[in-house]
Amino acid sequence: MYELGVVYRNIRRAERAAADGLAALGSATVHEALGRVGLLQPYLRPIYAGAQVSGTAVTVLLQPGDNWMMHVAAEQIRPGDVVVATVTSACSDGYFGDLLATSFQARGARALIIDAGVRDVKTLQAMGFPVWAKAISAKGTIKATLGSVNIPVVCAGAQVNPGDVVIADIDGVVVVPAAMAQQVADAAEAREANEGAKRAIFASGVLGLDYYKMREGLEKAGLRYID
Amino acid sequence: MYELGVVYRNIRRAERAAADGLAALGSATVHEALGRVGLLQPYLRPIYAGAQVSGTAVTVLLQPGDNWMMHVAAEQIRPGDVVVATVTSACSDGYFGDLLATSFQARGARALIIDAGVRDVKTLQAMGFPVWAKAISAKGTIKATLGSVNIPVVCAGAQVNPGDVVIADIDGVVVVPAAMAQQVADAAEAREANEGAKRAIFASGVLGLDYYKMREGLEKAGLRYID
Amino acid sequence: MYELGVVYRNIRRAERAAADGLAALGSATVHEALGRVGLLQPYLRPIYAGAQVSGTAVTVLLQPGDNWMMHVAAEQIRPGDVVVATVTSACSDGYFGDLLATSFQARGARALIIDAGVRDVKTLQAMGFPVWAKAISAKGTIKATLGSVNIPVVCAGAQVNPGDVVIADIDGVVVVPAAMAQQVADAAEAREANEGAKRAIFASGVLGLDYYKMREGLEKAGLRYID
Amino acid sequence: MYELGVVYRNIRRAERAAADGLAALGSATVHEALGRVGLLQPYLRPIYAGAQVSGTAVTVLLQPGDNWMMHVAAEQIRPGDVVVATVTSACSDGYFGDLLATSFQARGARALIIDAGVRDVKTLQAMGFPVWAKAISAKGTIKATLGSVNIPVVCAGAQVNPGDVVIADIDGVVVVPAAMAQQVADAAEAREANEGAKRAIFASGVLGLDYYKMREGLEKAGLRYID
Amino acid sequence: MYELGVVYRNIRRAERAAADGLAALGSATVHEALGRVGLLQPYLRPIYAGAQVSGTAVTVLLQPGDNWMMHVAAEQIRPGDVVVATVTSACSDGYFGDLLATSFQARGARALIIDAGVRDVKTLQAMGFPVWAKAISAKGTIKATLGSVNIPVVCAGAQVNPGDVVIADIDGVVVVPAAMAQQVADAAEAREANEGAKRAIFASGVLGLDYYKMREGLEKAGLRYID
Amino acid sequence: MYELGVVYRNIRRAERAAADGLAALGSATVHEALGRVGLLQPYLRPIYAGAQVSGTAVTVLLQPGDNWMMHVAAEQIRPGDVVVATVTSACSDGYFGDLLATSFQARGARALIIDAGVRDVKTLQAMGFPVWAKAISAKGTIKATLGSVNIPVVCAGAQVNPGDVVIADIDGVVVVPAAMAQQVADAAEAREANEGAKRAIFASGVLGLDYYKMREGLEKAGLRYID
Repeated sequence: MYELGVVYRNIRRAERAAADGLAALGSATVHEALGRVGLLQPYLRPIYAGAQVSGTAVTVLLQPGDNWMMHVAAEQIRPGDVVVATVTSACSDGYFGDLLATSFQARGARALIIDAGVRDVKTLQAMGFPVWAKAISAKGTIKATLGSVNIPVVCAGAQVNPGDVVIADIDGVVVVPAAMAQQVADAAEAREANEGAKRAIFASGVLGLDYYKMREGLEKAGLRYID
Repeated sequence: MYELGVVYRNIRRAERAAADGLAALGSATVHEALGRVGLLQPYLRPIYAGAQVSGTAVTVLLQPGDNWMMHVAAEQIRPGDVVVATVTSACSDGYFGDLLATSFQARGARALIIDAGVRDVKTLQAMGFPVWAKAISAKGTIKATLGSVNIPVVCAGAQVNPGDVVIADIDGVVVVPAAMAQQVADAAEAREANEGAKRAIFASGVLGLDYYKMREGLEKAGLRYID
Repeated sequence: MYELGVVYRNIRRAERAAADGLAALGSATVHEALGRVGLLQPYLRPIYAGAQVSGTAVTVLLQPGDNWMMHVAAEQIRPGDVVVATVTSACSDGYFGDLLATSFQARGARALIIDAGVRDVKTLQAMGFPVWAKAISAKGTIKATLGSVNIPVVCAGAQVNPGDVVIADIDGVVVVPAAMAQQVADAAEAREANEGAKRAIFASGVLGLDYYKMREGLEKAGLRYID
Repeated sequence: MYELGVVYRNIRRAERAAADGLAALGSATVHEALGRVGLLQPYLRPIYAGAQVSGTAVTVLLQPGDNWMMHVAAEQIRPGDVVVATVTSACSDGYFGDLLATSFQARGARALIIDAGVRDVKTLQAMGFPVWAKAISAKGTIKATLGSVNIPVVCAGAQVNPGDVVIADIDGVVVVPAAMAQQVADAAEAREANEGAKRAIFASGVLGLDYYKMREGLEKAGLRYID
Repeated sequence: MYELGVVYRNIRRAERAAADGLAALGSATVHEALGRVGLLQPYLRPIYAGAQVSGTAVTVLLQPGDNWMMHVAAEQIRPGDVVVATVTSACSDGYFGDLLATSFQARGARALIIDAGVRDVKTLQAMGFPVWAKAISAKGTIKATLGSVNIPVVCAGAQVNPGDVVIADIDGVVVVPAAMAQQVADAAEAREANEGAKRAIFASGVLGLDYYKMREGLEKAGLRYID
Repeated sequence: MYELGVVYRNIRRAERAAADGLAALGSATVHEALGRVGLLQPYLRPIYAGAQVSGTAVTVLLQPGDNWMMHVAAEQIRPGDVVVATVTSACSDGYFGDLLATSFQARGARALIIDAGVRDVKTLQAMGFPVWAKAISAKGTIKATLGSVNIPVVCAGAQVNPGDVVIADIDGVVVVPAAMAQQVADAAEAREANEGAKRAIFASGVLGLDYYKMREGLEKAGLRYID
């Protein structure tokens, strides 16, 4: 249950190097390294192509049609953060545009993940400030009701704690608990290294059926080939 | 991020009397008493009309098309519990039917809240075992992959911890942290008592505009009446 | 484009007798009599079974998560009205519950049509106050931002002017311009009378193919029967 | 790919006794007996509670907003049939109402399954003519473009051939190939008999974990219990 | 309620200079200048990136799966118009392709806004004829039933009158009443001018909290900072 | 009804030249040439812009969250094939990524059409392996349950038989029965040739109203022009 009307100023961020390194590994590899958990629902999409980021989460809880807390959140941003925002009930209004993006960028934020809408997309792309959002909407918001900043939030179906690492790219958005960042980075890197070799093998025509030794399992499960 | 493959046996349930008392107050009143948070998304609907329950949460994390963990969860149920189940990715298959319901009911469960589908709805209604679900589907599931039992889960957009109080009725499903159950019950009761009086006043023709003294605020905000 | 912050007090309601008479004809027959226009989108559903109403529209424009204008609207209701409410952007929160319903009913309203959510559904049914809504949600709303009352609104895809006749039943919700109410009532009644006779003919085994003389048209269009 | 503008008059219907007997077994049991295939997508819902039918499929391919072929289909109905209708592109209009239902019932049809909308729901319920549909909509249709009758169709994601057995109840709609009707009925009956015994065992408190001997498999998969 | 089977030839278009000037200001700024109304629902998306237009509305009412009226509308287009099309019930078929676009462009139309589907997207992009649509679909339509041209329509939840100004870009589609075009252009320009200055201020690190003097309001609302 | 656990090795592919030639004609033209049938539902979208392919279908039936059969399918691919995959119930997980794509490409596959999700989109684009999918999702899958390869499947609402021709581009995905490939290619080419001439005529300002001689039909249908 959400605590309303509070801002936590001192959050424990994941270790910087681990948080930064996860971007290059990508959301799919990190998600696998986590054991196939931690993915935000796939309706969150990047508002423009090509961005791939990771950083430490500053979380925001918003009210329907109200972006007051985004201004409060701006002050809590430190370089290397990614802002993760959610709303108390489903809303596609444009909570975020070029002015807030300018503030966020000036504070060192790398991206916004928001389970709602954004606008000024052309300018956001020109500024190089990426957003993963549920919708694009020109509809603006008011500033009337308190939410919270840096409390644990549920964003697009996943629990995100302040300070967690967030990885976002074309495949989606994944959250890694702060305490596990280094260990996940190591596992993901091992996985990634391994993938390069496999790609060459498969390119040469070797089948996964043989490489992963699946034929026996399939036969046991009863698979029948019919000519 | 979900911990996979674990079952927590000793969870701290909310105090029984408070947990039981919240059913009668209803989800809307409890949700208001909480400050308008704690509601699961409204796409969860009761599979038959008339049920109104509250109880302590036993949580289940499921995999797509796989209900193995429902059987594991059955053993963890104690009288007065409500099972809260979620899936690692969106799925509408029928994870639960009359046989599992018989087990759950034998263990003392009062209801199931599931962010997925259920089946055997006719029998469930005849048995008096209510379910709040995303879908009704005859499609069955397999038993192949581990999830977890009694870890914190996100169900229909809300974080539910094992032992929390869950209130479910025609208006929806609300979760109350275990530690706040008594305090919320008190606040909701006060609210409810108050509502009865108000209903009589409004039935007599008094307007909310006057009862809540809204006219001044509306005028200040600039509302204009045009004849 | 919506005019904000205004309440029109003197609206021209459709003639009472015509407005009242349309309920018994039903939304499907009225919709046909109108030439197959005037239907609100079918995602609006009755919150309980069995209600069938018609009346004159009092319209309300709401803001996301804010039901302030519902209280303003209550004062504008006269006996025989149906309140038609919409929101400036999509929202499923519970804008309306038993207290507002008590006020609306005390003023003589017959129903609410709302392109958003409602709550206290059990009490609404007990009171006999029907609602056609997009969602049922325990989530409450605030009172902070002005909308309008009795301006033309778009509700679930249809334009509704204050004073128009609204017909709502299990098949959906239809709006009839105030000036056309009597003429549509006449056309719908003629249609309905005709339907009774047809039902008997079809029950006797006569096919629509013959009754409507469709065989020639089908043949001309190229329909081929294959044995 | 659909063949347009044709009506097949002589279809090979499943054996009557097998087709009739599947209703009592229900969609969930039949679906399991088929190996968990054959289910139409769960967005098809009964328009009123309580109906449970099975019968042989007469199929209809419709065009958007056009129900001409429903009249053509009426003539092809024989006692014990269930009409299965689909549209060439997604449409929620009300393709079917009380007059067509009167014709269908007069010809001996037991139900309609339609991947679109229906209307006159109150009368359909009074007549006892059940429909499983995607939507309820008062919006009527025209008669201008040819589709087909008794060709193989895709309805709500499942291929249905004319003469197949269709089983529909509160849990959904399942299709069984005509040639397999008797064999599936036998398998489903065996399954059903077995279920009664299991229900008693589970009601006595025996867990599925023990009854199905799942504990070893769970341990092997790595499940850990934490106290 | 829609008038069917009519074409209004003499509509009163917004003043050309004002209509043309709004494109550069963009949908988000214009929407704010209007007081946050006038936005079509955000599910309308541009079929290719980069287009930003404004113009005077020629409106079209279509029937499901039928684009006959698009041909009728072509004749009513004058240079500087934007065609705004809607359907009497939800449909995602491809109502518009390269041939109609060639006609529209030859008549001077700048864009199409359609609450339905379009096709030939590759050619439309090559021609530089932008469309904001609900879907992309190769499915064609018939020409059988009358709708209307240049009547007031509801498109994606907003009322659009013939002659109104329509502004469309990456952030969405906004409609401005013809009579307000100049006044809105002035307000939007003032707003835009102001935004440039603000962007520089925020880029320098000044927070919205201070610039908009929000701290007092937040404190009054009860916001608590926790270290 | 799906046959489970089988792989058909010898399928009858459409004639190569006809299958290859359809890509250039595009999905919209082919769909028209087929009489406006054969289109997969438009929610299938290309994961990157610019791809336009045709080829012979290798079909795959998958289970929820399980991509085992994709590996089995890889072995059945021959140069010029397009893999068409569907799931027994709706699922948006990422069933396919860069490693499988490497295998598919090594075997000669031209594209994947999948009624589910995919991942590694950046690499897929770099490799030039196009996919039409329902979703993009980083969520991986397991390998536990049998589906089938090269049985007839329903993919996004259309029946696809192994060996059929599949055409996919920005406008969508169309399936052509193997036996009709040459005839459809001829019809589509004739259509396409014809379109070029029409485009020039419409660009010169001739209206479809005149070119298609629609004025008489419109008048007969009752269209009224109002000045």
